[in-house]
Amino acid sequence: MTDKGEHHVVIVGGGFGGLEAARHLAAGPFRITVLDRRNHHLFQPLLYQAATASLALSEIAWPIRSLLSRHKNATTLLGAVGGVDAAGKSVLLEDGRRVAYDTLILATGARHAYFGHDEWEPHAPGLKTLEDATTIRRRILSAFEQAEWLTDADERRRLLTFAIIGAGPTGVELAGTIAELAHETLRRDFRNIDTREARVVLVEAGPCILAAFTEDLSAYAERALARLGVEVRTGHAVSQCSAEGIELGGEFLPAATILWAAGVAASPAAEWLGVPADRAGRVVVAPDLSVPGFADIFAIGDTAHVAMGEGRTVPGIAPAAKQEGRYVAGVIRARIEGKPAPGPFAYRNDGNLATIGKRAAIVDLGWIKLKGRLAWWTWGIAHVYFLIGLRNRLAVALSWLWIYSTGQRSARLITGANAENPERRPQ
Amino acid sequence: MTDKGEHHVVIVGGGFGGLEAARHLAAGPFRITVLDRRNHHLFQPLLYQAATASLALSEIAWPIRSLLSRHKNATTLLGAVGGVDAAGKSVLLEDGRRVAYDTLILATGARHAYFGHDEWEPHAPGLKTLEDATTIRRRILSAFEQAEWLTDADERRRLLTFAIIGAGPTGVELAGTIAELAHETLRRDFRNIDTREARVVLVEAGPCILAAFTEDLSAYAERALARLGVEVRTGHAVSQCSAEGIELGGEFLPAATILWAAGVAASPAAEWLGVPADRAGRVVVAPDLSVPGFADIFAIGDTAHVAMGEGRTVPGIAPAAKQEGRYVAGVIRARIEGKPAPGPFAYRNDGNLATIGKRAAIVDLGWIKLKGRLAWWTWGIAHVYFLIGLRNRLAVALSWLWIYSTGQRSARLITGANAENPERRPQ
Repeated sequence: MTDKGEHHVVIVGGGFGGLEAARHLAAGPFRITVLDRRNHHLFQPLLYQAATASLALSEIAWPIRSLLSRHKNATTLLGAVGGVDAAGKSVLLEDGRRVAYDTLILATGARHAYFGHDEWEPHAPGLKTLEDATTIRRRILSAFEQAEWLTDADERRRLLTFAIIGAGPTGVELAGTIAELAHETLRRDFRNIDTREARVVLVEAGPCILAAFTEDLSAYAERALARLGVEVRTGHAVSQCSAEGIELGGEFLPAATILWAAGVAASPAAEWLGVPADRAGRVVVAPDLSVPGFADIFAIGDTAHVAMGEGRTVPGIAPAAKQEGRYVAGVIRARIEGKPAPGPFAYRNDGNLATIGKRAAIVDLGWIKLKGRLAWWTWGIAHVYFLIGLRNRLAVALSWLWIYSTGQRSARLITGANAENPERRPQ
Repeated sequence: MTDKGEHHVVIVGGGFGGLEAARHLAAGPFRITVLDRRNHHLFQPLLYQAATASLALSEIAWPIRSLLSRHKNATTLLGAVGGVDAAGKSVLLEDGRRVAYDTLILATGARHAYFGHDEWEPHAPGLKTLEDATTIRRRILSAFEQAEWLTDADERRRLLTFAIIGAGPTGVELAGTIAELAHETLRRDFRNIDTREARVVLVEAGPCILAAFTEDLSAYAERALARLGVEVRTGHAVSQCSAEGIELGGEFLPAATILWAAGVAASPAAEWLGVPADRAGRVVVAPDLSVPGFADIFAIGDTAHVAMGEGRTVPGIAPAAKQEGRYVAGVIRARIEGKPAPGPFAYRNDGNLATIGKRAAIVDLGWIKLKGRLAWWTWGIAHVYFLIGLRNRLAVALSWLWIYSTGQRSARLITGANAENPERRPQ
């Protein structure tokens, strides 16, 4: 590996925050290494569409190294980080390798959390990676396939019940799309079942869905879900998850497919450094996003707890991570170039969007609130715009126009149950 | 399941032959059930493109039930067939279920065969399913990723050596595309390795590549491969395959990525019935494609050994399977409608196409032979035309035009090593 003596910034994680930091540092006098355990940057806001057969995996993910291709001072390395040796200024990989740094940015993201019920995970997969999306897609489609065989009405009903736990944007988007899949896309393809009999139940412990939005928009989203046939159960905490179904408020709901959209926890970066974390495992950072006690280590995105005053924190969404990545690049650059440090990080809320199926959405830009079809088009255009690369924008736009006009979804593939060691007997 | 008393035709396998039979029977007085262990019909001629990051999985596969959606007398069931009870006129599923038939069509396809060396399979995966394509894509891309870490020249060279065994169309197409990936697509994305130093070695035991073509076209294809930087080794049988590399003609070639394109064997349909099979495991069928001794069972496609005279058999390619499916539908229909049986099956050779990278191809239509760019465009247009559905045609055409004009491939994702049980720690 080349070492030309420049200041070496190591960024762990090629998500929205890490990538933005790398791009902004690349213009400066730095050598940059991005380490990630996956080879791709994932456009997580659309991951639910891959999980519900609307988009192909390759339409929402892009190799990190090709995104940094034109920055000759940026190297990408595929590897799983398992710790930090802060005294030795090195990142430790799980396979024993070390990568030395001058400055370190931890942008390691979050995973789903089961609030002390890790035993629920096999029954209620969450949605964070492309593999998660493949798993969820396989479970949803397989439930219909199995139901097509059955004559037992109770078991058929259980197979055609989909419970989604957590009514944030991901839960609402999953519920809306599964309802459309059942009521529209799959309707004519089965002979023994009526897919429109499928029940989609969205369970939320809090008092309303999409709590980040105003009461008015949240209520609209709930009505839009009801129009799609989704049963919304707010104020119900799930007390049990099993292969048979879920238990909520003393009631047992038989459901073959349970999806988890209820909570996330940060990666173990705080443990690596032995620094204080909040309840979600996020590193409580200083106003300049550095880790207290480690001037040359920063934490951004879902890894960081960034206070906004009044007990609030910066939300764990892509625009926030990007702003933090850009800000930290500026802090590091000012240090190296001997300029005054920028003021503390200030989060700018650019708005909040959520979609409910293919015809409704809610948009809150602060100065304007939208709902319905216009909001849906705003949502769609914004997401196509934020996708990386013209080719992906064209492909996703084509996919969406196709779904919008025909109701057909092209990625209805059941794959991967034995991806590394597939059963080889053909048929 | 409804049983309206019509004649029930069960088709095992939703590949080219099975699907074509189902579609042609659907117009007649039949009830049709298609059984497949996968939910999708796969456009196998382009599977190598999914394996080499050029196309998304969902661009070359389509749910069988949606392809038969408009035929209300056709049911699709997802299930793994493990035998036939010919006396009881039932298909036996691996999970113990039975499906009764009046007439049975076995269109169960082929899998790769290692000529008595099944122990080579983990080191040299073949290409028959979407999961195979994901595995091969992961291995190819991971080899470059691992090489980027290394300073040891020998190990780096081994990681950047790709051995493809078998120079039929699949082997040639894999070799040409991997060479383009290394020499063009990935060229600017790595910092520590020069991907153009990758070696792509195509090994063939026979005297020439693409033996199904004329000597002239085969020689042209070999020159086109050489221009792409592929080393062609004809007349070399592989005597050993391991995690370290391959042995051919006493020489050991260290190679981290070995791909198997050397041979196929039919599914065990002949064993299910206890009837004679050829060396490749195919059922030796009667001139009307029925299985000798079982007037109500037919075998088509890669499951069937169909003699053409002079010791030759109908080739195991998609157009042949489709012709056989159509023919068998006609035979069954004539029987039920009391019409005279059609004459024996006669294979019509519509031509032979193979492509070498993104600029050369060879086409032999009998009355005309093409090579070079014109052949490539003929190949591309023919394959887009044969894809199912306007949406897939548009998507694949877009992908190809993009690769053709930019050299970039959009599906460069490493996924699925632990698809069912992914490591959940993010980064």
